[in-house]
Amino acid sequence: MSQIELQHIIEQIKPVSEEKLAAAQARFDSQAKPVGSLGRLEEFGSRFVAITGKDKVAGKRVYTFAGDHGVTAEGVSAFPQEVTPQMVFNFVDGGASINALARHAGAEVLVVDMGVATDFEDMDGLIKRKIAKGTANFAEGPAMTQEQAIQALLTGVEMARQAKADGIDLVGTGDMGIGNTTPSAAIAACICRLPVEQVTHRGTGIDDEGLARKILAISKGLEVNQPNPQDAVDVLAKVGGFEIGGIAGLILGCAAEGIPVVVDGFISTAGALIASELHPNVRDYIFAAHKSVEIGHHHMLHKIGQQPMLDLGLRLGEGTGGAVAMTLIEAGLQVLRDVLTFDQAGVSEGADQ
Amino acid sequence: MSQIELQHIIEQIKPVSEEKLAAAQARFDSQAKPVGSLGRLEEFGSRFVAITGKDKVAGKRVYTFAGDHGVTAEGVSAFPQEVTPQMVFNFVDGGASINALARHAGAEVLVVDMGVATDFEDMDGLIKRKIAKGTANFAEGPAMTQEQAIQALLTGVEMARQAKADGIDLVGTGDMGIGNTTPSAAIAACICRLPVEQVTHRGTGIDDEGLARKILAISKGLEVNQPNPQDAVDVLAKVGGFEIGGIAGLILGCAAEGIPVVVDGFISTAGALIASELHPNVRDYIFAAHKSVEIGHHHMLHKIGQQPMLDLGLRLGEGTGGAVAMTLIEAGLQVLRDVLTFDQAGVSEGADQ
Repeated sequence: MSQIELQHIIEQIKPVSEEKLAAAQARFDSQAKPVGSLGRLEEFGSRFVAITGKDKVAGKRVYTFAGDHGVTAEGVSAFPQEVTPQMVFNFVDGGASINALARHAGAEVLVVDMGVATDFEDMDGLIKRKIAKGTANFAEGPAMTQEQAIQALLTGVEMARQAKADGIDLVGTGDMGIGNTTPSAAIAACICRLPVEQVTHRGTGIDDEGLARKILAISKGLEVNQPNPQDAVDVLAKVGGFEIGGIAGLILGCAAEGIPVVVDGFISTAGALIASELHPNVRDYIFAAHKSVEIGHHHMLHKIGQQPMLDLGLRLGEGTGGAVAMTLIEAGLQVLRDVLTFDQAGVSEGADQ
Repeated sequence: MSQIELQHIIEQIKPVSEEKLAAAQARFDSQAKPVGSLGRLEEFGSRFVAITGKDKVAGKRVYTFAGDHGVTAEGVSAFPQEVTPQMVFNFVDGGASINALARHAGAEVLVVDMGVATDFEDMDGLIKRKIAKGTANFAEGPAMTQEQAIQALLTGVEMARQAKADGIDLVGTGDMGIGNTTPSAAIAACICRLPVEQVTHRGTGIDDEGLARKILAISKGLEVNQPNPQDAVDVLAKVGGFEIGGIAGLILGCAAEGIPVVVDGFISTAGALIASELHPNVRDYIFAAHKSVEIGHHHMLHKIGQQPMLDLGLRLGEGTGGAVAMTLIEAGLQVLRDVLTFDQAGVSEGADQ
């Protein structure tokens, strides 16, 4: 049943209109400045307009999905698992980095419990959609069932629909989950068909021995589970995470609903990779926020076909890079709205215009 | 007399305190996130705090300096010289790209006529400090006299002092002047001691023949004038521009007054290069806004010792990249102010903390 629902959503995803994109770029080109001289700001603005039909952002929201990971038993993270729920409380209280940067960007933050290994009371700003108390250790067997993977995706889709209903027209993805660079690297290795060593890095800051354990855990996970690189749901189920599934579903849902989605760093991009494997048109709705420090990131971005907007050496997650990147889209839109044309401004055009 | 005044200002420039920088970084390090995980946002925030002693920006202003260039007679630009005053009107009316992006950043724009080849009436937002109606053609002789070069520098210093008096604590540099990538490339070639071809590019969009003319004009200018690479005022006078002198003076003045200064792209960086040749401490006050499309830019940034904050394919000038970059400094400061420590948030520290 939910498999059919997922298929139905995927079928709704349309390509972004090339005509609308060209029309927005033509509007930039008519403005009193050398053609293309605001570079990627023009790209960001044009893409937002082509997707939404609007030249101003009405509402911004970051969804930070949280989940725990059985694979932490393999000693893959510098932080203990108890940090996942602690950070959920920190997000809800507004004291974390994503809160600060979302505040800076004028965006709301909603936290979605996809599978934290702790029970939460009801709290404002926390959406409770726990699938299980953490994934199973994928070094020994599948992280989750296929049904759970689809449930995670559909939960993300639900968030996109809610965003649409709430008048949100720019969404950011975020993640929290101790150990979650490990499933993200596993997804990257599997779908990009790259050696584990080429996509596995230090996450929150493990040492050389920790890195060796992480590479081993991922290698075992891929060996034991044999995820099918051509079946993104299978990859998510076997070596993914609940929050990664939520992110993938949010991105799918944004594409289906026509909402531009700013994808944060390494973990979010693993979700974006799952989503864009489910339908290639998804890529048109993705803004790749930044270039993560994680070595596997650029391989995933290459596969998705998006260039990062920022390169600030970020490696935090939570949605932090996405929140900052939102402001660049708005900068592009401000230019689009405010800058006069050559005619309006009484400015002579150049020889090559 | 003005030579002595300039020397006096240069002597006021102190290094930025390493202790204050370390204290700000320590504050970031205490926050509930992996150490250093917000990368350059932490660097931007720390540097602002170390320079100003404050963790919030009270007032932002972009100074866009305008001037004309005798060297346009050599056919080095795709746009006619009349565009310089036309764009000054556009700035003052608020319809240009810098106005849009400054609005986005919450910054004020002031335009300084340093040497446009047109007389302006008094207008709000225009500061009239015309030194001459355009520089002389440096392919045939010095662009300006040494006295005019010093006057341009002191005008920039005056703007920094006014900013300080007005409670501005973050300043951006900007430029307008048809043909002004040509003197900027000449400054880069001279001070970085590089072949003209390695630092000369297409500006607002000249074709191959225009580029060849531009390289020839710069080569002639360096040959005819023999600027002394070890005397930045001499370089400014012989192959510079009035607006570039204003920018250099603004940066000097900001360093003397303890104001962080966001340096826009290629032309602004030529000004920054002049300023940092006059005193090496100037570099500590510079935030390099973005990586320009102009090929000579990274050589100048390397000499100044600053890494660009953004890489968005910008090649407009006016101060546009600087306005966008201001928002990244504020993002770093928002993190510094708002994010709770491990203790405050009740979050367990990692193994490596």
